[in-house]
Amino acid sequence: MVEEMTNTSEAGSTKKKSTQTPFASKRISDLSSKVGTLQGWAIGVDLGGTSIRGAWVGPKGQMFDPIKWETKVSEGKEKVLNRMVQLVEELLKNPPPGCVPSENLLGVGFGIPGILHLKKGLVIQSPQFPDWKRFAVHEKLKKKIKFPVFIDNDANAAAIGEKVFGVCKPYDDFIYVTLGTGIGGALFLNGDIYHGSMGMAGEVGHITVDPQGAPETTGNRGSVELFASSSGLQKAISDLKEKFPHLTVSSTEELFELWKRGNKIPEFEAVDKIFDDMGNALGIMLANVVNTLDPQAICFGGGLVQSWKAFSRKMIQITMERSYVARHNKLRILTTSLIKNSNFLEAGVIGAASLVFIDAMRRLPVEVKQASKPAASSTALKAVAS
Amino acid sequence: MVEEMTNTSEAGSTKKKSTQTPFASKRISDLSSKVGTLQGWAIGVDLGGTSIRGAWVGPKGQMFDPIKWETKVSEGKEKVLNRMVQLVEELLKNPPPGCVPSENLLGVGFGIPGILHLKKGLVIQSPQFPDWKRFAVHEKLKKKIKFPVFIDNDANAAAIGEKVFGVCKPYDDFIYVTLGTGIGGALFLNGDIYHGSMGMAGEVGHITVDPQGAPETTGNRGSVELFASSSGLQKAISDLKEKFPHLTVSSTEELFELWKRGNKIPEFEAVDKIFDDMGNALGIMLANVVNTLDPQAICFGGGLVQSWKAFSRKMIQITMERSYVARHNKLRILTTSLIKNSNFLEAGVIGAASLVFIDAMRRLPVEVKQASKPAASSTALKAVAS
Repeated sequence: MVEEMTNTSEAGSTKKKSTQTPFASKRISDLSSKVGTLQGWAIGVDLGGTSIRGAWVGPKGQMFDPIKWETKVSEGKEKVLNRMVQLVEELLKNPPPGCVPSENLLGVGFGIPGILHLKKGLVIQSPQFPDWKRFAVHEKLKKKIKFPVFIDNDANAAAIGEKVFGVCKPYDDFIYVTLGTGIGGALFLNGDIYHGSMGMAGEVGHITVDPQGAPETTGNRGSVELFASSSGLQKAISDLKEKFPHLTVSSTEELFELWKRGNKIPEFEAVDKIFDDMGNALGIMLANVVNTLDPQAICFGGGLVQSWKAFSRKMIQITMERSYVARHNKLRILTTSLIKNSNFLEAGVIGAASLVFIDAMRRLPVEVKQASKPAASSTALKAVAS
Repeated sequence: MVEEMTNTSEAGSTKKKSTQTPFASKRISDLSSKVGTLQGWAIGVDLGGTSIRGAWVGPKGQMFDPIKWETKVSEGKEKVLNRMVQLVEELLKNPPPGCVPSENLLGVGFGIPGILHLKKGLVIQSPQFPDWKRFAVHEKLKKKIKFPVFIDNDANAAAIGEKVFGVCKPYDDFIYVTLGTGIGGALFLNGDIYHGSMGMAGEVGHITVDPQGAPETTGNRGSVELFASSSGLQKAISDLKEKFPHLTVSSTEELFELWKRGNKIPEFEAVDKIFDDMGNALGIMLANVVNTLDPQAICFGGGLVQSWKAFSRKMIQITMERSYVARHNKLRILTTSLIKNSNFLEAGVIGAASLVFIDAMRRLPVEVKQASKPAASSTALKAVAS
């Protein structure tokens, strides 16, 4: 797709077919399909506000020894950092069969929520970690871990994982959206992550969907995050409990369980309205993003994807109504294929490990062939917009 | 800035400073600062719904013999196309001193409003030209013009012109927004125009700013275009005339003239409200775009920029309130420096000519040096957000 769109088309000569450089490229898209040929393992760690997840990940995406610990944000940044290191040490004690860490471990990758200054290795700020302000996380991790350490924003890491191992294999231009405690986003453009001028690109969770909506700490009002993240949905859940005091629902998972019971319960209409508002808000957000970026696909990850059935129909309907670009470019709306079971969210861990694999590919001494088209994903597309 | 943001930062080795390819690049950013060294001229043609503008443009951005003709859309696409060709022929009769077209004309560039399929040279559809549906404009122009012919979307062409000759010289990551009959946009990311998967990227005029707003032909409701383009403002102007039947205002230019008279006129409050709503809508749009793309700068062009004083203060206030990314990345909000006088809008014509110059740079046999930092623009920034 990249070669298809040159900046100018020229008439005089038919010799010039493409403006792309003939030299080896280091785009993720040009490397991702070869990751499976690497020798060695990576450790991936996904840091979240509630839990830290980590595992060994092989170059074919196989996971070994997944571990999930509580984050305990309230104990402060140094203790959280130590717990991240301890989790790696725990994994190192139990390598996959045939793997000797000192010989076969390519590195450790971390997906971290928040705004990162990658060159300096800083977390500038992070909604989940209020005390992480210009926190030199990379330097500190490097000092404590004797293997190469890689960091990126958690949504960027998950998008790379989805490109290397998941449903985004066939795409060079896609947007990745995580629906979790907050809403995160990553832009995969022209075969690479686009970080923006300061590393903050992809903050689609702060797109305004209700200009007169409730005020937020960011200064905005009525962001999509208020309607479609688990922190935002807490308000709707309290309103529901006020209306129906007998209900014991408190989490978004329990809300979805209620929804699944359907018309059989008297509260269904009120519960359905919450997911309908969520779908509507996400639809307005997606239409804006698609009109701006004209991607091939949008891929959703994060815990709330498990409520997909409750909100996705409305979301897709609104996106298609509001975006003629989405109708013209036959936008694909996908969900991560990197969830194996509901107890362990893989996408973030595999994404963090992918940071290691992409770097390993970039260091290979052999000249990488130009922009080979990756094989179509074998994973079935879980949801495709009509 | 591009080199600053690598996808992953690595710990083990300090040798690897950048993941950027060491080979010659063909990005516009790597070529634009050398355009002034080219020998030869270009002809730039900016096609609009009301007028066609064209001129000779030299490699230092100098303009010669500007011509402006009526477009006469109602006469149909073939006649409009012929008028575009005739305008070029008219220019060829009167070359700049010392320029012999057969020797010194590098090519003819056209900026065209609408969605283009660049590889096929088609206009897929264009709001200004309802009968242009998969219209093979490139092929037809090539047949009738004996010099190399280049086309791109008008907003993309204007953004390239601003990068080569205007206020965007210092930036590798900026958004260009045209406020004209409609609202167009171009994304200049990582030193190049980003076209999206189908060539439709940059349609920021269709971003929703009032979800319950008036329905539009695109299927959306309450797009920013309804509040901040000259076609959208017609509704506000009729409402104003209904309230104040003695007013003779009918164009956005006349509306701005009224605004300039200030509190002296009894209608001022109503007039100011229109520009206030325009600024508010643009502010919501910009906050969304900046949260998504984290650009260094936003640059505005198009006829409505001449009313800048009336709407920009509100626009900048709302953008800064609603986007913490804009506050963190010290967003620059600029207006085109390529307007010399109010009768002839240069930006589009110089942009169209820039398509020719960038292609000429790409064909130079010498190896282009890597990512030389362009000299800071000598043009003063006309408006910088506080």
